[in-house]
Amino acid sequence: MTGPFAGRTIDGLAQDLRRARTTSAELTELALDAIAGPGATLNAFVTVDAAGARAAARRADDERAAGTDRGPLHGVPVAVKDLIGVAGLPLTMGSRHFATHRAPADATCVKRLRAAGAVIVGTTTTHEFAYGPTGDVSATGPVRNPRDPARMTGGSSAGSAAAVAAGLVPLALGTDTGGSVRIPAALCGVAGFKPAYGAIPADGVFPLARSFDHVGVLAGSARECLLAYRCLTGDGNAPADEGGRADDSGRAGDGGRAGAPRVAWLDPSGLSALDPRVVRLAREAAGSPPEIGWPEGLADALRETYAAMHSCEAGAVHAGRLAAAPERYEPETLERLRAALEMPGWRYVRAMDARAGLAEAAQALFEHHDVLALPTVPITAPLIGQRETDVGGRPAAVRATLLALTSPWNVLGLPALSLPAGTAAGLPVGLQLICRPGEEALLFHPRA
Amino acid sequence: MTGPFAGRTIDGLAQDLRRARTTSAELTELALDAIAGPGATLNAFVTVDAAGARAAARRADDERAAGTDRGPLHGVPVAVKDLIGVAGLPLTMGSRHFATHRAPADATCVKRLRAAGAVIVGTTTTHEFAYGPTGDVSATGPVRNPRDPARMTGGSSAGSAAAVAAGLVPLALGTDTGGSVRIPAALCGVAGFKPAYGAIPADGVFPLARSFDHVGVLAGSARECLLAYRCLTGDGNAPADEGGRADDSGRAGDGGRAGAPRVAWLDPSGLSALDPRVVRLAREAAGSPPEIGWPEGLADALRETYAAMHSCEAGAVHAGRLAAAPERYEPETLERLRAALEMPGWRYVRAMDARAGLAEAAQALFEHHDVLALPTVPITAPLIGQRETDVGGRPAAVRATLLALTSPWNVLGLPALSLPAGTAAGLPVGLQLICRPGEEALLFHPRA
Repeated sequence: MTGPFAGRTIDGLAQDLRRARTTSAELTELALDAIAGPGATLNAFVTVDAAGARAAARRADDERAAGTDRGPLHGVPVAVKDLIGVAGLPLTMGSRHFATHRAPADATCVKRLRAAGAVIVGTTTTHEFAYGPTGDVSATGPVRNPRDPARMTGGSSAGSAAAVAAGLVPLALGTDTGGSVRIPAALCGVAGFKPAYGAIPADGVFPLARSFDHVGVLAGSARECLLAYRCLTGDGNAPADEGGRADDSGRAGDGGRAGAPRVAWLDPSGLSALDPRVVRLAREAAGSPPEIGWPEGLADALRETYAAMHSCEAGAVHAGRLAAAPERYEPETLERLRAALEMPGWRYVRAMDARAGLAEAAQALFEHHDVLALPTVPITAPLIGQRETDVGGRPAAVRATLLALTSPWNVLGLPALSLPAGTAAGLPVGLQLICRPGEEALLFHPRA
Repeated sequence: MTGPFAGRTIDGLAQDLRRARTTSAELTELALDAIAGPGATLNAFVTVDAAGARAAARRADDERAAGTDRGPLHGVPVAVKDLIGVAGLPLTMGSRHFATHRAPADATCVKRLRAAGAVIVGTTTTHEFAYGPTGDVSATGPVRNPRDPARMTGGSSAGSAAAVAAGLVPLALGTDTGGSVRIPAALCGVAGFKPAYGAIPADGVFPLARSFDHVGVLAGSARECLLAYRCLTGDGNAPADEGGRADDSGRAGDGGRAGAPRVAWLDPSGLSALDPRVVRLAREAAGSPPEIGWPEGLADALRETYAAMHSCEAGAVHAGRLAAAPERYEPETLERLRAALEMPGWRYVRAMDARAGLAEAAQALFEHHDVLALPTVPITAPLIGQRETDVGGRPAAVRATLLALTSPWNVLGLPALSLPAGTAAGLPVGLQLICRPGEEALLFHPRA
């Protein structure tokens, strides 16, 4: 299945709209038809707001006719993860706990989408409470991978990735606490960008683990992620044509070079067992840069810090519901949240302490390089419901494997981009690029 | 037993030193003799540094002879709780874990004592790791209450309170995480002041629960606590003679009144069962002010926040030692720390969140009043080793009862002073006064 936005870029759509080759109303109908028609089998959407989308499209077209141009998202259909408040629409978090809940207001990121003229067509399925990287557990069932509907999309921004990958919309918002934007982007073959911590405000977004919660974007390509990111940070009208950087002057870390960033391949075997096909494809997509290793102990410390803080913060969000109505959770979510409640607090205190030191230790990774490259996910998409797999001939837990290469960058709060890097046996592979905050433009520099 | 400093004030000693009626060397010998002689039965001191004290006294006398006056502590013997680093002296935390440990450097508060010219005569017994309000659990045995050696001093700054109460020294440093300065001050019949959180830096002090750890002072009277507090905050030479305030102009909360602060009696029955004799004595000592109650739910929320954060932070400090050498802890400390390790982290996260709201809710207590008065401790000193008692005809746990009226002010970080308020059946009772940070002078206003 190939939806109406497959192969079309946001830049191209914006140009078509500006040149009156199409209208927002027309693009919106294309999206609504595809979501309701062939796209429905993916279970990517929870709520489709046809009336709201049509009204927004009409406003966008009217504004344009009156001479207003809100920038590259003006009139473009977008989807929003069902964990992010869109005023008046159902906001279920993929859970029966919130089956009848509606968002009281727009999240800040949604406000910014609207200010950029985007047309919100609906909300996309999230792994229940965003508490899982598989995307196949929610009150409304699993999301299906457009490349192979028997396979998971990854998650938790499962529906957003599927919707973009299937060409139902050209852009979707997601959230990423341990990889929830990048993992499904990689497994579905689209681009996903998790900005620096706090770069896009998370208010109005249901929390998973607040120290690691990020709002991010999914689109067909890195360039489109950058364009959307700029709209979401209030920089939407800056030119995106000179290597992706709005301001080239005096940036620290550039070392005065106007050219390509210094890219290192960060040995992923320090984090996880890996499918060798994935490693080869990702490294090639990165331009086969020189390899660097992990500073002693850093990878383990990042993993421990992630586990302790994630459990305690998620537990704090859910303790009341777990006591009052445990039966409303999907069984796997319930089991995992109950385990999270057991995480002792002294580990949280220790993890909070460790974190500052980890950030410092991680600086060493950037001593001689600007951008770190590694696979986004060590494997290709498992089957829906699969929880054990085989990686390089050894048994491995699916959840831990999916998260292994992405969650360190949530602990560190560093910008992280996942790019399509080809396919292995027909299943997409992702290349992940990491940089320091303030140097995001380097991630979007055209690759070799 | 009445030591050489009983009935003498720091002001008086300073005046005697300035007028050459005595010397620091002489005062230091008085202290050393009393500590080694009649005071020894109290077990108030862990280490006596006779050589260091004599050298410091000689320097103080030489400086004075040369015309230098470092202020009211110049040449005055003081003691320091064995949880606070004094360079080169044993620093045992009352524990066999640190039986042979010596402080690598002076804590900041000790540096400030020395800069004020004080003569450090030794270190005082702490409840093991400051983890208990009874003062009768340490590697070197229980501290005895000078009023009745069969009774506990309270803790954890047990030795500091006993040393001041017995007149062995006129001033001692303590620490206070849930009442550890104020509780032993009250049970021993001296004054103890826990300043606002952070007012005296806690670096160089072994942590108990860092969010609540305060450095404080114990002396014979409130006025002497104020004097020492000023020395420890770098304000030691400000005049202390006009109602105790260095600067009367434009202070917020004074409402333009130059007179007495508006004092309220804060109903202590919202926090604990109480010995009615204690309530009567404390309220009389406060000048029988009008009573106010607790805002709905605030007392419970403060208790829960204290318990969750205290356990997790203390657990983080001790987890390694608990795994490696549990047998070195005193049995009660071991049992309590093991329980602390079980406190789930989600409660810590919740408590951290609750805390900001609690501080706001507590503002209501000061809406019509400047100073809150309540007993320091609901009971008089129990027997050494006693863990269950009877309060107003009902059984009560000694530890929880001792802490009930003091720990809320650690959660809120508010300045809190304990004053002697008479005796019940020969055992001291304490009056506790609370104010907002920045208004400390009000606590020291002469009482009606």
